[in-house]
Amino acid sequence: MCQNCLVKTIHSVNSHFGWDHSFTPVERVAPGTTLQMNCRDSSNGYFTAHSQVADVSVMPFDQINPVTGPIYVEGAEPGDVLKITLDSFKPGGFGWTANIPGFGLLADQFQAPALALWHYDTQSLAPAAFGDFAKVPLKPFAGTVGVAPAEAGLHSIVPPRRVGGNLDIRDLAAGSILYLPVEVAGALFSIGDTHAAQGDGEVCGTAIESAMDVVVKLDLIKQTPLATPRFSTPGPVTRHLDSAGYEAFTGIGPDLMQAARQAVANTIDWLCREHHMPAEQAYMLCSVCGDLRISEIVDLPNWVVSFYFPKVVFQ
Amino acid sequence: MCQNCLVKTIHSVNSHFGWDHSFTPVERVAPGTTLQMNCRDSSNGYFTAHSQVADVSVMPFDQINPVTGPIYVEGAEPGDVLKITLDSFKPGGFGWTANIPGFGLLADQFQAPALALWHYDTQSLAPAAFGDFAKVPLKPFAGTVGVAPAEAGLHSIVPPRRVGGNLDIRDLAAGSILYLPVEVAGALFSIGDTHAAQGDGEVCGTAIESAMDVVVKLDLIKQTPLATPRFSTPGPVTRHLDSAGYEAFTGIGPDLMQAARQAVANTIDWLCREHHMPAEQAYMLCSVCGDLRISEIVDLPNWVVSFYFPKVVFQ
Repeated sequence: MCQNCLVKTIHSVNSHFGWDHSFTPVERVAPGTTLQMNCRDSSNGYFTAHSQVADVSVMPFDQINPVTGPIYVEGAEPGDVLKITLDSFKPGGFGWTANIPGFGLLADQFQAPALALWHYDTQSLAPAAFGDFAKVPLKPFAGTVGVAPAEAGLHSIVPPRRVGGNLDIRDLAAGSILYLPVEVAGALFSIGDTHAAQGDGEVCGTAIESAMDVVVKLDLIKQTPLATPRFSTPGPVTRHLDSAGYEAFTGIGPDLMQAARQAVANTIDWLCREHHMPAEQAYMLCSVCGDLRISEIVDLPNWVVSFYFPKVVFQ
Repeated sequence: MCQNCLVKTIHSVNSHFGWDHSFTPVERVAPGTTLQMNCRDSSNGYFTAHSQVADVSVMPFDQINPVTGPIYVEGAEPGDVLKITLDSFKPGGFGWTANIPGFGLLADQFQAPALALWHYDTQSLAPAAFGDFAKVPLKPFAGTVGVAPAEAGLHSIVPPRRVGGNLDIRDLAAGSILYLPVEVAGALFSIGDTHAAQGDGEVCGTAIESAMDVVVKLDLIKQTPLATPRFSTPGPVTRHLDSAGYEAFTGIGPDLMQAARQAVANTIDWLCREHHMPAEQAYMLCSVCGDLRISEIVDLPNWVVSFYFPKVVFQ
C-alpha cells in the first residue's frame, strides 16, 4: 500500500447483517481503490473485557457477524471477478472465544456455554496468553469476505457460499489475494468477522474474535470464469505455529465428518490428560490454534483426517 | 540413531500382502531395538524405468502394497502402545505415479490410465522434475505403517484402520514418532508403501511411489489407552513446499467429500488453463505436492475445503 496515499475509511457504523443485493451501497469506488474498512467483532461489541460465561447463553443472535459495506465497485458486472488484496490488519487488542451451545463441531459433546477473553499487545502481536495453559501465536485475518449473491432476498450470514462470505479461511491474512465471482452489478463487497487467530476448521465455532481495521484494495477482472472462491498467499502460511512441530491425532473411517470429529475429540482427551485442562478449555484452544487436514482421501473405504496441534503453544 | 550400533536389517524378501495375525514373524526383537527395514515400492517392483502407460491397466493387483515384516516385539500385549520412531529414510532414486482406473478422488472424471516416472538424486534429494512442467520437492516417508488387527483372517492392505496400516500420512517422515494401539501378542509390526513425496490427501491415489530403506526404533508403552493412531513431528512439516506460498482453490458445501472433490477439480482446471498441462498430468501433480485442508467445519450448513497448491514447484 502507498504510505502517502489518502485512503478512504469506511467506518463500522456502515455495517449490515446478512447478505442482500438490495442493500444500499455505503460507497462507490473505481477499480484499483484502496479502502480502510473498520470492522466490528462478530458479536457486534456484545462481549467486552467484563463479560462472563453467563452472557453467552443470552447473546443476541440477530446481532451476529456484522460486515462493513457494501461497497459498489464501478463497472463490476455478473461474470467478472473481484480481486481483493488484503493489505494489512490492525487488531484492537481485545478478543473473545466462546463455546456457543448448539454450534461447533462437537456441539453434542459440549452443551454448556464457555467463554475465554483475550488481551494481546497490538504493537508486538506477541503470542496471547490463554490463561496459564498456553500462549497462542497471532495471525490476524478476516473470517467473512464476500460480495452479494444474485438470488433476491436476505441470506443468512452464517454459511459461506459461491460468492464468499463466512469462509473462515485462516490464510486470508495480510498479503493474501482473494478472488470472488461477481453475481450482481457493482459486486457489493463487504468484510468483517475479523479474527486475531484461528486454526483450520475453527472447530469450536469461534476464533479469537476481535474488532480490527483492515486495508483492502479492490480490483476488477472482466469476464473471467470462476467456479468458487480462490486465493493466493504471498508466502508460508503456518510459520507462526510450526517451529516446534505438532502433536497430531487421527480419525479414520468412511465419513470425513466423523473422522474429523474423532480426531478433534482425541486431541481434547490428550490435552485434558497430559496438560490438565478442563475439556471446554481444550476445545476452545484447539479452535484457535489447531489445524484439520485430510491426510488421505483415496484408500477405500477409510479416509484419514488428522488434527495438528502445535507444540509451540506450550513453550 | 547410534551411528556405531549394529542395526539388524530386515530384507524386503520378508514381505507380506494384507494383514493377518497368523502370519509368522520374520524376526523377534526386544523393545528398544532399532531395525533397518528394506521396503519395496507399492507395485512390488512391477513398474520400472521402462514402464509405459499401457502397463497400468494390467498391473497385478494381488501384488499391491507389500509390507516388510511382521516383527514380533517381545512383551507386547493387547492394550499396549507401540511407539515407532521413524529415524531415517534412504530412497532408491526411481519412482512412479499413476492414475489407476477406478481408484482416486476423481476416479469418475479420470477413467483412462496415466503414468509418470521419476528419477531423483538420492544424495541431494533435490526437487524432482515432473517432465518440463514442474519440480517437486521431496520428503520421503512411509505410507503404510501398522500392526496386526485382533480380528482373525486376512484383511486388505488398502484401507487404514485403528491399528494403522495404509495411513498415507505425509508427515510420517524422518524424526516423526507414530503411536499405534497393540491388539495382538507381539504387536506384529510391518512397514512399506514408501513415498518420495506426497501431498495431504494423495488425491489421485498414488504418490511418488519409491522403494526405500527405512530405519525405525520400536519401543513399548505398557497398558495405555489409545483410541486411534497418533503421531508427533519433530518440527515444521511443510517447509519443503511453503517458501513461495500457495495458490488455493475452495470447495464449499454441506458434504466434505464433495467439497474436497470440487477444490481439487478447480485446481486441475487452473493448472490446465494457466500452466497448459494435460488434465491427467495436473491430477498426478496435485497428488504429489498439493494439500487438502478443512478451512472451516462449523458454519452450518456449508463447510469449506481448500486445496493448497505450492507455487514453489513452478520456480
